[in-house]
Amino acid sequence: MSHGKQFTLYTHKGGPNGWKVANFLSELGLTYHSVYLDFNTLEQKAAPHVDLNPNGRIPTLVDHTNKDFVLWESNAILTYLADRYDPARQFSASTEEDKYKELQWLFFQASGQGPYFGQAAWFSWYHAEKVPSAVERYQNEIRRVLKVLDGELAQREWLVGGKYSIADLSFITWTVFGTTSLAPPGYDFAKEAPHAHAWLQKMLARPAIAKVTAEKAAVNAQ
Amino acid sequence: MSHGKQFTLYTHKGGPNGWKVANFLSELGLTYHSVYLDFNTLEQKAAPHVDLNPNGRIPTLVDHTNKDFVLWESNAILTYLADRYDPARQFSASTEEDKYKELQWLFFQASGQGPYFGQAAWFSWYHAEKVPSAVERYQNEIRRVLKVLDGELAQREWLVGGKYSIADLSFITWTVFGTTSLAPPGYDFAKEAPHAHAWLQKMLARPAIAKVTAEKAAVNAQ
Repeated sequence: MSHGKQFTLYTHKGGPNGWKVANFLSELGLTYHSVYLDFNTLEQKAAPHVDLNPNGRIPTLVDHTNKDFVLWESNAILTYLADRYDPARQFSASTEEDKYKELQWLFFQASGQGPYFGQAAWFSWYHAEKVPSAVERYQNEIRRVLKVLDGELAQREWLVGGKYSIADLSFITWTVFGTTSLAPPGYDFAKEAPHAHAWLQKMLARPAIAKVTAEKAAVNAQ
Repeated sequence: MSHGKQFTLYTHKGGPNGWKVANFLSELGLTYHSVYLDFNTLEQKAAPHVDLNPNGRIPTLVDHTNKDFVLWESNAILTYLADRYDPARQFSASTEEDKYKELQWLFFQASGQGPYFGQAAWFSWYHAEKVPSAVERYQNEIRRVLKVLDGELAQREWLVGGKYSIADLSFITWTVFGTTSLAPPGYDFAKEAPHAHAWLQKMLARPAIAKVTAEKAAVNAQ
């Protein structure tokens, strides 16, 4: 690729799932070129993107050092990157049992957090009709999901294996989005879910994550 | 366990994610005892179930032959069962590349099919207020997801690796539910998504799947 980076990341300037992958590439010290697709023109649902990803959603990763291997679904991408580029398992489970617990949390993030927080965004901002009862449904789910995490993090520092891993990292971007933009008015994350709040702050303070947070701010200021 | 089966499956008489796991246990010829939780009394969100699964949703699997190992999130369970009880990889990817493609489809099923089809059910039947525009939103998503699958299955018989695998199996129960109960009036699955339709019929005709379909019918007839 002419950009000389190891990966091309098809993503979106605001989308939490794209920044999730950027966060992990940053943790691994891997280089990537971001292609920001324009959702207003439905660029994500047109060629050339759908030739790589028939689902027409972001992110999609192309690994130029592995014969341009293409993968979509952000948590499948995290798992691929961990297995291939973190052989010492600094950021992923190192026992058989923990491997499936990690996968369990990745699926919970992908199925229980992302879509529900996403529906809160949809009904808060994009749905043509105002439906307060739908907004409330998904705001309640934001509260509930953060409570589930909080209950676990009250018992241990990290979700799996006694260390920061992709299971934790996978929750960063949607948790930020959910608690800062989507939660109901007056929601106090630090008060309602103190352990989850502290866990998020600890992750956001990591240099690799702070670097991507700054990158996102710069891209969105343009 | 007094029931003498290898697994205990905490599930629900109707829930597609529980029957998904039953389908794969059946394919593997493994024995399981199903505990059907009563959603009307919120049994899934109370002890003893939440002591096993803090998310309070189904399914939850306990593996009595592996020190009562507990796992929730249906597609994490499929992966665990495949890795542990199908060493010949009859039902899962056998190459590195296919392993991540399989995971990609499992995440698509978990994040792109289950929750959206589930919201169609919610707004069709359970939401206190009638919101036709919300029902329509999720019916459109059912159509779209089945089209994505259809486009892939027009090009090859199975999603990954040239064989029936957990990637395909993971879609069975929600696809049946979506096409028979949730799609908009007049939706013709065989016409709108013929390749996905044929793929589903082929899977439903498998003896191990037909056995679980009959088990579900019997349980729901009680």
